[in-house]
Amino acid sequence: MHGIVETELTLTPTKLRQACRTEQFCDQTSGLCPGYTQANLVILPEKDAYDFLLFAQRNPKPCPILEVTDSGSRQLQKFAQDVDLARDFPQYRIYQRGKLVAEPLNVVDYWRPDLVSFLIGCSFSFEAAMIAAGIEMRHITEHVNVPMYNTNIPAKSAGRFHGNYVVSMRPIPENQIVRAVTVTEQLPQVHGTPLQIGDPATIGITDISKPDYGDAVTINPGEVPVFWACGVTPQAVVVASKPDFVITHAPGHMLVTDIKDTDLKYQL
Amino acid sequence: MHGIVETELTLTPTKLRQACRTEQFCDQTSGLCPGYTQANLVILPEKDAYDFLLFAQRNPKPCPILEVTDSGSRQLQKFAQDVDLARDFPQYRIYQRGKLVAEPLNVVDYWRPDLVSFLIGCSFSFEAAMIAAGIEMRHITEHVNVPMYNTNIPAKSAGRFHGNYVVSMRPIPENQIVRAVTVTEQLPQVHGTPLQIGDPATIGITDISKPDYGDAVTINPGEVPVFWACGVTPQAVVVASKPDFVITHAPGHMLVTDIKDTDLKYQL
Repeated sequence: MHGIVETELTLTPTKLRQACRTEQFCDQTSGLCPGYTQANLVILPEKDAYDFLLFAQRNPKPCPILEVTDSGSRQLQKFAQDVDLARDFPQYRIYQRGKLVAEPLNVVDYWRPDLVSFLIGCSFSFEAAMIAAGIEMRHITEHVNVPMYNTNIPAKSAGRFHGNYVVSMRPIPENQIVRAVTVTEQLPQVHGTPLQIGDPATIGITDISKPDYGDAVTINPGEVPVFWACGVTPQAVVVASKPDFVITHAPGHMLVTDIKDTDLKYQL
Repeated sequence: MHGIVETELTLTPTKLRQACRTEQFCDQTSGLCPGYTQANLVILPEKDAYDFLLFAQRNPKPCPILEVTDSGSRQLQKFAQDVDLARDFPQYRIYQRGKLVAEPLNVVDYWRPDLVSFLIGCSFSFEAAMIAAGIEMRHITEHVNVPMYNTNIPAKSAGRFHGNYVVSMRPIPENQIVRAVTVTEQLPQVHGTPLQIGDPATIGITDISKPDYGDAVTINPGEVPVFWACGVTPQAVVVASKPDFVITHAPGHMLVTDIKDTDLKYQL
């Protein structure tokens, strides 16, 4: 699945972004460039940017903002050099009035000078720390995308934006749950601590074997499903709120940045 | 100076806000209601709100946003019940085109339906934790406002807003500096770790005995000046950027909220 990884053990974020840019790589990014921060994407016209930034401020757990571009810019100042936001994610989604209408490999033809890009923290960023702490990431072991679910947890609304949280799930052995909490607590900018440990029904998930985004993974006896707030939340919010035009990443298909996870907590 | 404290040992945030509302209390708030989060204020017309929210996102160290109101609202959803943002700070400042034009005790007559209020974290909020850790807060001991200084540290600009950081200073004995760092690291929403330990000149402060805001305090032999990012930074930015109309708090004259400092790190 990750052919690029198997042939290139020294894959850097820059090389991976170039492979996305030339459409040689268009897969999900979990496990790639371990230790580097990965990012979700929301791109909106200026007229909706204030409401969305306020939505993120009011919902920092699912929407921790890493960086916001100036209007029209496809560059970043902080999280990556040599980047083109319209091409360097492996895959994108186009939403019109809340409806998913396309999943292109780049959004060059959709670009407009009034677009503002929001980079949002991603739980893939804490996975290297989890693995270093001896906690298996099942979806990486099974070479699939992380399972993600819609929930009944309401986000705080802001202007035109409202909707429920999306969560990602990782099965964790009972005796490693404390460790999973303390490892992720260290990284609040990539969703931080879990939202829910255990019963999926508590947060409105009726069938753990059927994720709304990504792929199902095996949950072994003695393991507990643990749920983290997910940067796909804005996509559920876009579906609920129906703004005119939004570009996002395809779930699991992230931008890999130049910033190390361990540097995140020291960033000014 | 704090007559209200000396007569009322059980002062609650609600009672203090009511005393501000009726203009019985109009002093600085350092040391009041220990353990409760205090907040800086910036109020702007809607047309400037996006640029300011983006400025705060890009400068979380001086401008950690606690809450943003809906346009025109003088209430809060999260940080306080029974609050009137136009009356419950002890004193306000009015800026027109970057110039300080008034320092009223309430801003009822300045209120407009297009105003958005930003509550910003305040270092007074970590002082109870510092005192509990055995670290003297000299300005509290000396019953004065904390000393604050303009610096040469540039903030990241956003839209129309640009300018330099403002910092607050506390003298710390050399053997307590590590403790002062670790205590404040726990509270990133109220400025977190220091920006500078030691030489004021490094950050452009030429005379430590002459603060730009607040009052000078004694620095004893064996003590080092330690500087934290300060929520007065937006006022230096307003002076530099000259937006049409801004209301702020008077430096040191904070809103005392209903939220405990210890709860800040667990807030979703």
